[in-house]
Amino acid sequence: MKAVVTVELKEGVLDPQGQAIQQLLAQRGYSGIDEVRVGKRIEFSLATLDGSRAETMLSEIADKLLANPVIERFHIDLK
Amino acid sequence: MKAVVTVELKEGVLDPQGQAIQQLLAQRGYSGIDEVRVGKRIEFSLATLDGSRAETMLSEIADKLLANPVIERFHIDLK
Repeated sequence: MKAVVTVELKEGVLDPQGQAIQQLLAQRGYSGIDEVRVGKRIEFSLATLDGSRAETMLSEIADKLLANPVIERFHIDLK
Repeated sequence: MKAVVTVELKEGVLDPQGQAIQQLLAQRGYSGIDEVRVGKRIEFSLATLDGSRAETMLSEIADKLLANPVIERFHIDLK
């Protein structure tokens, strides 16, 4: 099965990369963009077909290795 | 309105970052992970409420500035 872990900065955490994109777009004439936030999307191809097992494993992986729980939150989508 | 642009490597394009994550996870004892692919998730807060206008603008931005069309594909989700 496939699963996608999305890692985003928490609300209120400054995103310099997003701000850089926003400024670049404004300079290029794209108006009406109030905010840009950049995150990661990590797609897993898993041998297991057991959704709850996959979610438990990915939740542990995301919490320990993919996201920094101080400033980031993550979300798991099974497909 | 909010919109999310997802940028992924095209099928068949080597993903060294994903392979590094996969190897690390195998070393840490996580088995049954066949493949890991890393992509970007860019969230936009837009002033416009016009979905088709937002999609046209973001499609141009993604194609020109966020994705490398030779090796990456993108997808737009309006929220």
